[in-house]
Amino acid sequence: MIHYEDIAIGTHQSFGRYEVSAEEVREFAEKYDPQPFHLSQEAAAKTHFGRISASGWHTCAMTMRMLVENMSVVEQAGLGSPGIDSLRWIRPVYPGDVLRCETEIVDKRRSKSKPDLGLFKSRVRTFNQDDTMVLEMVSNGLIRVRDPDAPIEDTSAG
Amino acid sequence: MIHYEDIAIGTHQSFGRYEVSAEEVREFAEKYDPQPFHLSQEAAAKTHFGRISASGWHTCAMTMRMLVENMSVVEQAGLGSPGIDSLRWIRPVYPGDVLRCETEIVDKRRSKSKPDLGLFKSRVRTFNQDDTMVLEMVSNGLIRVRDPDAPIEDTSAG
Repeated sequence: MIHYEDIAIGTHQSFGRYEVSAEEVREFAEKYDPQPFHLSQEAAAKTHFGRISASGWHTCAMTMRMLVENMSVVEQAGLGSPGIDSLRWIRPVYPGDVLRCETEIVDKRRSKSKPDLGLFKSRVRTFNQDDTMVLEMVSNGLIRVRDPDAPIEDTSAG
Repeated sequence: MIHYEDIAIGTHQSFGRYEVSAEEVREFAEKYDPQPFHLSQEAAAKTHFGRISASGWHTCAMTMRMLVENMSVVEQAGLGSPGIDSLRWIRPVYPGDVLRCETEIVDKRRSKSKPDLGLFKSRVRTFNQDDTMVLEMVSNGLIRVRDPDAPIEDTSAG
């Protein structure tokens, strides 16, 4: 099981494969983001999207699925996330696209108030089948510390 | 139809009602965020969540639904979003919670490269039935300019 101590700044991972179906794009948009350009080709044609594209939140959700599948492979003692520092929907995601992920650990530190808790920052990038970046975010993760009695050192990159 | 010119910094809105069902929490987590603490009461009890809570991305999606319903009421010429500056999952969202939204326009400016396009920043806050804030984000929106020939003035707050 991977704990805080095993996380190394600079570690890069490349993983995931998510086929974006037209049906799933429509279902997600109908339920959570029913803006006309996500549901109607005619409405989408009048925007810079050109044709129906996935809700940006759907792209986040599909990215999360790939992240969680990758976590399961490496078995992290993950405890959720306090949030995202910056999230950019760089290019639209279209039905038929096939997504994949790249992550890089950019920072880590122990919690000052909870000695059994560590925090790390990852840069997450999602690409389509043409290697075009469609999403980029810097996400914060919480993870268990294996040895909470170890002294808290300043490992912060910034 | 509301265009860029109608958006005023400082405008505050309060709206929305979203009942979070256990079934929807499970469905979203199974599909997009199958971490054990989102799917098993036993696993959740071992974390600070205490019991099964919604995926943070599900909270974003439910918030988006309330935002889009509110947009439809006011009929904005919205064109999607380039991204989110900061997103914080402040408290867990549990099955049975009832969510609502508050938004405030915090900045606006014309696009320098595309005269028919405006950008605005909103602070979005989601609360539960106890008026506890569960999510806060600063989101960027794109919106059509009614009169693209008008000179581009600096309206930025920052």
